[in-house]
Amino acid sequence: MTKWVYMFKEGKADMRNLLGGKGANLAEMTNLGLPIPQGFTVTTEACTDYYNSGKMIQDEVKNQIFDALRKLEEIEGKKFGDAENPLLVSVRSGARASMPGMMDTILNLGLTDVVVEGFAKKTGNPRFAYDSYRRFIQMFSDVVMEIPKSKFERVLDEIKETKGLKSDSDMSAEDLKEVIAKFKVLYKEEKGTDFPQEPEKQLIEAVTAVFRSWDNPRAIYYRRMNDIPGDWGTAVNVQAMVFGNMGDTSGTGVAFTRNPATGEAKIYGEYLINAQGEDVVAGIRTPNPISQLEQDMPEVYKEFIRIANLLEEHYKDMQDMEFTIEDKKLYFLQTRSGKRTAAAALKIACDLVDEGKITKEEAIMRIDAKSLDQLLHPTFDADALKAAKPIGSALPASPGAAAGRVYFTAEDAVKANEQGERVILVRLETSPEDIEGMHASRGILTVRGGMTSHAAVVARGMGTCCVSGCGEIKINEEEKYFTLGGHTIKEGDYISLDGTTGNIYLGDMKTVEASISGNFERIMKWADEIRTLKVRTNADTPVDAANAVKFGAEGIGLTRTEHMFFEPERIPKIRKMILSKTEEAREAALNELIPYQKNDFKGIYEVMEGRPVTIRFLDPPLHEFVPTDPEDIADLAKEMGLSVAEVKATCEELHEFNPMMGHRGCRLAVTYPEIARMQTRAVMEAAIEVKNEKGFNVVPEIMIPLVGEKKELQFVKEVVVETAEAVKKEMGSDIEYHVGTMIEIPRACLLANEIAEEADFFSFGTNDLTQMTFGFSRDDAGKFLDSYYKNQIYESDPFARLDQNGVGQLVSMAVQKGRATKPNLKLGICGEHGGDPSTIEFCHKVGLDYVSCSPFRVPIARLAAAQAAIANK
Amino acid sequence: MTKWVYMFKEGKADMRNLLGGKGANLAEMTNLGLPIPQGFTVTTEACTDYYNSGKMIQDEVKNQIFDALRKLEEIEGKKFGDAENPLLVSVRSGARASMPGMMDTILNLGLTDVVVEGFAKKTGNPRFAYDSYRRFIQMFSDVVMEIPKSKFERVLDEIKETKGLKSDSDMSAEDLKEVIAKFKVLYKEEKGTDFPQEPEKQLIEAVTAVFRSWDNPRAIYYRRMNDIPGDWGTAVNVQAMVFGNMGDTSGTGVAFTRNPATGEAKIYGEYLINAQGEDVVAGIRTPNPISQLEQDMPEVYKEFIRIANLLEEHYKDMQDMEFTIEDKKLYFLQTRSGKRTAAAALKIACDLVDEGKITKEEAIMRIDAKSLDQLLHPTFDADALKAAKPIGSALPASPGAAAGRVYFTAEDAVKANEQGERVILVRLETSPEDIEGMHASRGILTVRGGMTSHAAVVARGMGTCCVSGCGEIKINEEEKYFTLGGHTIKEGDYISLDGTTGNIYLGDMKTVEASISGNFERIMKWADEIRTLKVRTNADTPVDAANAVKFGAEGIGLTRTEHMFFEPERIPKIRKMILSKTEEAREAALNELIPYQKNDFKGIYEVMEGRPVTIRFLDPPLHEFVPTDPEDIADLAKEMGLSVAEVKATCEELHEFNPMMGHRGCRLAVTYPEIARMQTRAVMEAAIEVKNEKGFNVVPEIMIPLVGEKKELQFVKEVVVETAEAVKKEMGSDIEYHVGTMIEIPRACLLANEIAEEADFFSFGTNDLTQMTFGFSRDDAGKFLDSYYKNQIYESDPFARLDQNGVGQLVSMAVQKGRATKPNLKLGICGEHGGDPSTIEFCHKVGLDYVSCSPFRVPIARLAAAQAAIANK
Repeated sequence: MTKWVYMFKEGKADMRNLLGGKGANLAEMTNLGLPIPQGFTVTTEACTDYYNSGKMIQDEVKNQIFDALRKLEEIEGKKFGDAENPLLVSVRSGARASMPGMMDTILNLGLTDVVVEGFAKKTGNPRFAYDSYRRFIQMFSDVVMEIPKSKFERVLDEIKETKGLKSDSDMSAEDLKEVIAKFKVLYKEEKGTDFPQEPEKQLIEAVTAVFRSWDNPRAIYYRRMNDIPGDWGTAVNVQAMVFGNMGDTSGTGVAFTRNPATGEAKIYGEYLINAQGEDVVAGIRTPNPISQLEQDMPEVYKEFIRIANLLEEHYKDMQDMEFTIEDKKLYFLQTRSGKRTAAAALKIACDLVDEGKITKEEAIMRIDAKSLDQLLHPTFDADALKAAKPIGSALPASPGAAAGRVYFTAEDAVKANEQGERVILVRLETSPEDIEGMHASRGILTVRGGMTSHAAVVARGMGTCCVSGCGEIKINEEEKYFTLGGHTIKEGDYISLDGTTGNIYLGDMKTVEASISGNFERIMKWADEIRTLKVRTNADTPVDAANAVKFGAEGIGLTRTEHMFFEPERIPKIRKMILSKTEEAREAALNELIPYQKNDFKGIYEVMEGRPVTIRFLDPPLHEFVPTDPEDIADLAKEMGLSVAEVKATCEELHEFNPMMGHRGCRLAVTYPEIARMQTRAVMEAAIEVKNEKGFNVVPEIMIPLVGEKKELQFVKEVVVETAEAVKKEMGSDIEYHVGTMIEIPRACLLANEIAEEADFFSFGTNDLTQMTFGFSRDDAGKFLDSYYKNQIYESDPFARLDQNGVGQLVSMAVQKGRATKPNLKLGICGEHGGDPSTIEFCHKVGLDYVSCSPFRVPIARLAAAQAAIANK
Repeated sequence: MTKWVYMFKEGKADMRNLLGGKGANLAEMTNLGLPIPQGFTVTTEACTDYYNSGKMIQDEVKNQIFDALRKLEEIEGKKFGDAENPLLVSVRSGARASMPGMMDTILNLGLTDVVVEGFAKKTGNPRFAYDSYRRFIQMFSDVVMEIPKSKFERVLDEIKETKGLKSDSDMSAEDLKEVIAKFKVLYKEEKGTDFPQEPEKQLIEAVTAVFRSWDNPRAIYYRRMNDIPGDWGTAVNVQAMVFGNMGDTSGTGVAFTRNPATGEAKIYGEYLINAQGEDVVAGIRTPNPISQLEQDMPEVYKEFIRIANLLEEHYKDMQDMEFTIEDKKLYFLQTRSGKRTAAAALKIACDLVDEGKITKEEAIMRIDAKSLDQLLHPTFDADALKAAKPIGSALPASPGAAAGRVYFTAEDAVKANEQGERVILVRLETSPEDIEGMHASRGILTVRGGMTSHAAVVARGMGTCCVSGCGEIKINEEEKYFTLGGHTIKEGDYISLDGTTGNIYLGDMKTVEASISGNFERIMKWADEIRTLKVRTNADTPVDAANAVKFGAEGIGLTRTEHMFFEPERIPKIRKMILSKTEEAREAALNELIPYQKNDFKGIYEVMEGRPVTIRFLDPPLHEFVPTDPEDIADLAKEMGLSVAEVKATCEELHEFNPMMGHRGCRLAVTYPEIARMQTRAVMEAAIEVKNEKGFNVVPEIMIPLVGEKKELQFVKEVVVETAEAVKKEMGSDIEYHVGTMIEIPRACLLANEIAEEADFFSFGTNDLTQMTFGFSRDDAGKFLDSYYKNQIYESDPFARLDQNGVGQLVSMAVQKGRATKPNLKLGICGEHGGDPSTIEFCHKVGLDYVSCSPFRVPIARLAAAQAAIANK
């Protein structure tokens, strides 16, 4: 028979999966002999069973709950539902991972019209008893029966107004009785039945409500944001009530064993005298700092400090504790490893190592790799942030905070920046032609586009704050203004963006530059010693590359060459190439591009000082380089000496129904081998010149994109090798070089054994691979993915977190097949997933050699790689 | 040591893979003791080796050729290059599969300035000798040295003109000597060297030329059209020359043991007296029917008939033979199973069974399943076709012949058809709105779109002739004319289309209706007895369904429900649904569609009389249903009582970057479950009503498209089941129904084990699966696939013939994983590949239950399924 319910003394800390974090820790503390109000935990499996049984709690589970209740009555020496000596309980959720505030809590359960009388008598405090009942009715009605809270608040307000009372605490026991009577009328109006007077029925309803709350929209959203699987379920903790609101010798509070904001090794917290937990949360009264407890109740304080220290010592981590003092007796209601800022996390981890409490490996495992982002970008000044209210919110596409004047075109942004202004670029969506304007801006705001849109990808690469996909904005690019949240913002007006939260603010908010501490360096050094996965970066320019090296990148995993073509002096040449009618004319146009492209590569090679650099050949479809606007087409025709009709016809010919699945990647090199020849020449000449001039050991890695078939790679590789050998001969160099491919088409994974015959390396392009494997484009998926999250079909964005079940199968397959053909095949991942910790662990497990991510994610990747190595030792 | 060269007597018929078809049959005939000019075969492996060695013949191969040459000299009692008694040889290609006329042949090799003198003396026929040398120089220069043939023709014409001679045969030996001298000057001008005077060098060059010709563009094209792999290579046959042009007791001809056009069991062929093979081909002289040989040379004729019968008896198939008579001595130069029309193939197969020569299984294997198409569609009258010259040519998208007047819009086509005209619809590309016009037309011609474009798919379904993707057409739809091949065709002008070849003709050509013979019925009956794979059809209307049943379809594998929405009275309702702002409004609009959709389904159920019918729920993105033209948008706004801006905004919101990877398939049902509810209701009500009214055992199969994840299917299935159960209850029916999914997303294959938990059946949608697996869209691939064929990266169109290496892996995986979860999971394939014989064999092998294809391909599929069963016994 399945055991669905555990008394606290039956559990321990490592039963977190079954009992939830709270339940496991309550059990652990019970067994440590700490002062815990006793109780029992209904398991997470019972929750899963509830969902599998059509949202019904089975009788067997109910029976086990009642059995546990009997045991609890014995322990507490009280009786549930008994008027003389009643046992009251709290009912709280507690999942495997902490989800603060996401699910439901009910206090004071077990009170009824009869019990409250006895409770009043027993405590000798009728006001307290009726207040408890009043709170219980209110909470039960809201949480369990889903009657809007506001209706009860209104009843309360009316009574206070009639009686001229200012606050709840001014109400007498009689007043509260009146409130209770009215609450019960309201309840009956809403539900058609009387407020339940059977405590056992109350209990089962409350447990059901907690189970149900696992799937409320805010819990679903929280799980998606925090990568918590939907099938974990929540446990329910039923615990004897203790009361912090029994007078001035009672109280309740929350404390941390170290400062969660800074990491300082000093107890930190606050408490309220004569209050229940919800009063602290509600924020009506201002709590006292924990240090004041020493004056208020010195004995209690001493005991509190003793236990807090004991808990930190026991768990070897900073603890976040809830406690209640009932008539000078201290109870702990909860302990857990506390949430902390990234800076605090680093300091605490280093301090715990220095204090000899944990190892370096444990220190590394304690830090949320994703949170490091906070340390690398500017943030808003805390006071400024507290005072501000966002006028809108969209996708947090690239982290950091920025404030500046709004401009609507790349040109205007560049001009304003030159005049020393701080610029926020606002666009419907960005395109490669906006690169210069994006560089000139502090922040970027787009109306369209997701987390992997052009704006988002480029901004993350540059480390520039970006908020994308703000569909609520109505933009008028011609008259240069936009509206949002009822405000109209014109060119030159100040706004502020938070790329970490996605919030948009009016005005010029103060920002604080990022500062990297010595703790950061220490942790990174430890991580580098442990990890086996190399970390490279995606960088298209020497500036990005230099930035990445500063963050610890060991090479470049992806240089996108097309970004180099969009600069104003170059794009006419690529357009000339596109408009050429013969191979010769194309070749001539391309030759004009060689010096530019060569210089780009030289710049990168010089910065990278001999570290590996993977250069991806031209990838986007050619129509991205031609204008669509009739005026621009006319200009181009004039420039090229062609008729408008001719240019228009070429541009139209280039149109594609599904550009993502069109004439791009190596398909361009198959139809126009001269493009691959030009790029090979630029790569090889640059490498040889840098090698000769600077003495760096440059070994170019040429990457052919979008390959789906061995013969396709073979064809392009032949073109590359022929040109490369010619350049080597011309320049008298014996430089080494590699030719490999990006694995980003499902077919390439299926036939990786064949493709590996022609490839020196594979780099997984998991953006496209995800698109093709799921069959949806990242640009279009925004229209339906929200429904998928809402209905819990997908729990995370497959473009941000690698879908290990599906796409991951293809990656594993390609790794195995590729290495079967070529055991020393070099394997990496580029693309957005390369900076995601869970994906990095996957990459470690399947045996990749490196991950590559945007420069600002390099530290995250280094740490995540170390965590993967430790977790999979 | 590899044996690269085989004397004829060393081989036999079953060595076809190594010796090629021609070489294997020459060996077989030699060993049968037939009169064969002796020789040797250079193997197909030598050809492969030539390509693998950088297009060089290795010395070892050359040495074996020369050894074989020595042996041949002994057999023939002549010497290669000897002036007194010269051995002359022919050099001919011969691949595994017959590729008539695709590769090169050189005759009279071994002649030089010196040898020709001796040859003249020995034959006592100087004119013959110099004519042979003249022909050799011409052929060698053209085939081996790639000097344009026309230059030699010009020399010949000049000499004839100067001398006042009418034809080649008027030239004397002296004239021919002059020709030879001028040919040699021309050769030197072109190549810079003298015409080669070393016969062994001539031989190696000729063998090289044959190897090279394996990769000439027309051979590559032929292979692609006939599914012949590029890595097979060709063998080369070197054979002693015999001469049909040594006077009136010599001759040459071609004959078949049965009539290749009708199958009649009577020898059929023709010959020329005093001629070499090329003269027969050139068609300058009119050959005699073979029967006349009985009068001309009775002894030879008797011998010829004896051997012909012996060959057919030996090979148990109709033979296509080449023969030469040299001074009354008969030689066979080649025999092979003859190409034949589909009608002849059926008759010959049935006759051979009746004659007791082959089994039914063998008969079935003899018929090219694809060729059955010819029997099901009209064709052009043979005389009309002979007289006609196409003005253009494009993709043979849907077979058959059609002639009629040109119209440019669906409306005009419908109107003209109503007035009794035969209509050819000419469109830039067709869209679902053109359906009615397509139905009203005899033939369809489009400027854009491939073999799987909308026009092609729909036309094949209707059995209407269609030529698609004629990019050379300049169309002016407004002024209603188009130009092609220098002709301007206006509305109402006659044109004729051949959907089997892709040819386009001017004028009103006579067509002949298809007639199906008793042989067809016999073969189909045998096929049905043998095959284990069921054959269903893709049909959207009762008419298509009825057609398919006539052709033997055992059910419907795919009914596309979206086609039902485009009819004029329905599209406003679906637009109203799209423009609705709330679920309620959408539901109301959808409810108006139920009666229409229900009637569609009832019509189909009635026609199918209880056979299984799989109905796919709405698949295309919603923007396909809204107008893009500003005028149409304005009309719609008026109709709907909305502002133009509102309608325009909705239409724009629906825009997708990559519609193929956008908001379609089951994604629509996830965001708008009310659509699935409406469709379920229509399906269930229709099924129950037909069951009740007609007594057919209707078991609806509801197919959810584009599923990539179990929970996605689960979500939609819940909506379907809930509605279906409600309808059953309302109508008091206990009807059975199935819910399954289309497997068309790579991820669905990878996770088929999970998806099978929710599915009653899988149907492979290999069109989309191919797109996603290759990462290219069928609408866009046209721009680069030609380069891929030209460079032999892909050898066939993956949208026509299933890519078994890549996509096939996914299909196999899904079959295995699906059946692992649910051993009796029903598996089928719908989509274009379902009618392709090689794909059908694959489906048989991986264990599908059925294939589904367009109605006119049902007989092909039945035959191919039987062939697969036989081949894989």
